[in-house]
Amino acid sequence: MTTPTGKVICDITISADGYSAGLDQTEERPFGDDGGDGSGAGLHAWMFDTPDENRAEIDRLNTAGAFIMGRNMFGPVRGAWDRRWNGWWGGDPPFHAPVFVLTHHAREPQPMDGGTTYHFVTDGIVSALDMARTAAGGGDVTVLGGATTINQYLAAGLIHELRLHIAPLTLGAGTRLFEGVPPLELEQLTARAASRVTHVTYRVST
Amino acid sequence: MTTPTGKVICDITISADGYSAGLDQTEERPFGDDGGDGSGAGLHAWMFDTPDENRAEIDRLNTAGAFIMGRNMFGPVRGAWDRRWNGWWGGDPPFHAPVFVLTHHAREPQPMDGGTTYHFVTDGIVSALDMARTAAGGGDVTVLGGATTINQYLAAGLIHELRLHIAPLTLGAGTRLFEGVPPLELEQLTARAASRVTHVTYRVST
Repeated sequence: MTTPTGKVICDITISADGYSAGLDQTEERPFGDDGGDGSGAGLHAWMFDTPDENRAEIDRLNTAGAFIMGRNMFGPVRGAWDRRWNGWWGGDPPFHAPVFVLTHHAREPQPMDGGTTYHFVTDGIVSALDMARTAAGGGDVTVLGGATTINQYLAAGLIHELRLHIAPLTLGAGTRLFEGVPPLELEQLTARAASRVTHVTYRVST
Repeated sequence: MTTPTGKVICDITISADGYSAGLDQTEERPFGDDGGDGSGAGLHAWMFDTPDENRAEIDRLNTAGAFIMGRNMFGPVRGAWDRRWNGWWGGDPPFHAPVFVLTHHAREPQPMDGGTTYHFVTDGIVSALDMARTAAGGGDVTVLGGATTINQYLAAGLIHELRLHIAPLTLGAGTRLFEGVPPLELEQLTARAASRVTHVTYRVST
């Protein structure tokens, strides 16, 4: 076993009231009642409508050596993998690295174009992190979400750095970052405003 | 009745998870479990420990023509005014303007040094705002908190501008900004980072 040297990072877009997705998520509306059409466009307008002024934050997402996400972020299929689903991101996903998907249902690894392979992990968040760190070599591991998954990692004290993108809207209900997480001491590393988002990076004291 | 021309502003410090005070507030610990000693020093370190780099945001607080606060922000005395209490801010409070305190218990106005007078309003948030706007002339009215009071004004659609100071810690529980407030569309006006706080100003679409 090699000693991991990279950081474990969370990178997530939240509303001003801390939600990463609204209520009533469906296949057609993966972000639920998100202040827009359920596509996350309200929350993620900074990324889709103003990519140039947010290039650094978008590019930084892709520097991780491996990623982790919850099954609800991966897709709308619940229970056994009884229907073909290879994520929301098409045949050439933007990750270009191994992605470890937390699930209760075993599935063979799913290679995609461009270097992304989805690995399905059934034995919990610590195991997923171990695998992701090994896959990343000395690189960083980024936990992408959703908030429920991030909250589990935060509560377990496994996150070194939080990268928040705070969108200018509130949702009032949904999946909330930090919900159920014991108090954290943070060190504010950077903060930067673009026209439709505030980016804040915190180091988590553990 | 003059037509009000100033803005109605909320100005409040919150944790990264949206709380303006922790649980178990007492006279000795007005901010409750606030990540520090209950004095709010954790949340308000930016104001007390690094005033120079946050001068603009501190000074801007004092440009309002009148202020509004809830009774829990004014002090720990509950029920009838059966004990002398003139706020947390000493004999010469930093407001230098009329301050309208929401309460269910009538009390005569309380003049202080330096131009601050506490007025006690028993007939609700709209009445308090009417009085504050009149007192402010054409100036701005700032609702200072706590979050419970601000949430009532937000839910009623009475706020034009939100000035948030996001402190680098989470509380996990307490009084949360936006709790129970229907979804809001915000326009991000400014955002600025100092070493221990991120200042974000939003226009509220009404």
